[in-house]
Amino acid sequence: MTLKIIGFEVSSNTLSVIACLNELGLPYQIENPASWHALKEEDFLANKHPFGRIPVLYDGDYKITETRAICRYLVSKYQGKHNDTILIPHDINEAGLIDQLISYEVSYYEPLLKTIVLQEVFKLHPENHEIIKHTCEEIDKVLKVYDKLLEGKEYLNGEFSLADLLHCPYTQYIYSSTKHNDLWDKRPNVKKWWDRISNRDAWKKAWKISRDAWAAGDK
Amino acid sequence: MTLKIIGFEVSSNTLSVIACLNELGLPYQIENPASWHALKEEDFLANKHPFGRIPVLYDGDYKITETRAICRYLVSKYQGKHNDTILIPHDINEAGLIDQLISYEVSYYEPLLKTIVLQEVFKLHPENHEIIKHTCEEIDKVLKVYDKLLEGKEYLNGEFSLADLLHCPYTQYIYSSTKHNDLWDKRPNVKKWWDRISNRDAWKKAWKISRDAWAAGDK
Ligand SMILES: N[C@@H](CCC(=O)N[C@@H](CS)C(=O)NCC(=O)O)C(=O)O
Ligand SMILES: N[C@@H](CCC(=O)N[C@@H](CS)C(=O)NCC(=O)O)C(=O)O
Repeated sequence: MTLKIIGFEVSSNTLSVIACLNELGLPYQIENPASWHALKEEDFLANKHPFGRIPVLYDGDYKITETRAICRYLVSKYQGKHNDTILIPHDINEAGLIDQLISYEVSYYEPLLKTIVLQEVFKLHPENHEIIKHTCEEIDKVLKVYDKLLEGKEYLNGEFSLADLLHCPYTQYIYSSTKHNDLWDKRPNVKKWWDRISNRDAWKKAWKISRDAWAAGDK
Repeated sequence: MTLKIIGFEVSSNTLSVIACLNELGLPYQIENPASWHALKEEDFLANKHPFGRIPVLYDGDYKITETRAICRYLVSKYQGKHNDTILIPHDINEAGLIDQLISYEVSYYEPLLKTIVLQEVFKLHPENHEIIKHTCEEIDKVLKVYDKLLEGKEYLNGEFSLADLLHCPYTQYIYSSTKHNDLWDKRPNVKKWWDRISNRDAWKKAWKISRDAWAAGDK
């Protein structure tokens, strides 16, 4: 078994896959594309990802793209083989609820955080204060719902799962590189949840890899 | 087993779940919320969907929200029980590729079609010709990729799967209620694929239910 990620360590989607591999106790290599620009070139489009995105995972000759598909594949194939961490429970009803929470993250959480992070952290779009203000208001509403979802629970579905993990990259960028973390801190259940998920070894190890790459100018 | 969908038959996400239930040969009831407005009211938010969306599925006392999570749950629990249709193969590698294709649909296909359909079909946003023109150009690029993905294949992953099914609702709205279907028709593999997936009994039955509801003024 050789697991290889094609991606950049600073990319939030790549970071989710790195954290997932860490949680499952799997060894892996990371291979950086030649540049961000290279993702849109013929060779990458033809052989790596038809829409020019990272991450891409190779498991030997098997190739799979798209963050959540990659994570689910890793869980299906390797969960329980190298350690006891359960990211998706075997019970069908419980697994369904994890899937639901993953979809909440994709649909209602990530797009808002991404708007902020692309402007304020990655500087990919010019900072627009109107948009940031409006996005923060929307985030506030979403976190109000999360605070309720987390009532009486340590993690979104009670036990730690892939759904929690997938919230880490963008939230970490908000905490580490913006001033908007007060939106999280003021919601007691959200704050405790963030403290729990961001202090897991698998995540801290992933984030360190990412910070080292950032410091090396890799963004 | 009593399966109940909370949703509107004209909603593309509700339609995906209806088509999935039809494919698996499952009986179900559909219950309409009081109005679209009711989705944002306290009772619906507290008891049905915390972000105020449809569809919601009840399987007896078990409740699950979010279209793709609902479909995956139905497959995990019922595939093979009522007929031979396979929407997600048991093989882990193949299942991973279906997941990847589902993510392509969510990430690169649906947002573009949704922009058109919300303006031109549901009239939820004012028609903006600049945006529609730009969106059509983006759709054209995406369908070029799809035409390549479909080369030598009847379906996106070779055999019919949940990934194909999830493309039906928005594409059907484009064909039935807009003039943009030429973007699909001019791509030979895409056109043949659309003919195949839109002519499946499960889809035709779902679409008829939707059209009847539309005719009854239900949108
Ligand atoms: N739907 C994809 C999104 C992947 C994605 O957009 N990755 C970003 C980096 S975090 C990327 O490749 N950006 C390059 C681009 O969009 O051109 C997934 O879930 O993996
Ligand atoms: N991520 C959700 C999206 C559901 C969704 O947005 N459904 C639409 C109808 S197709 C809806 O509830 N719209 C009402 C609203 O957004 O207020 C899913 O996959 O089910």
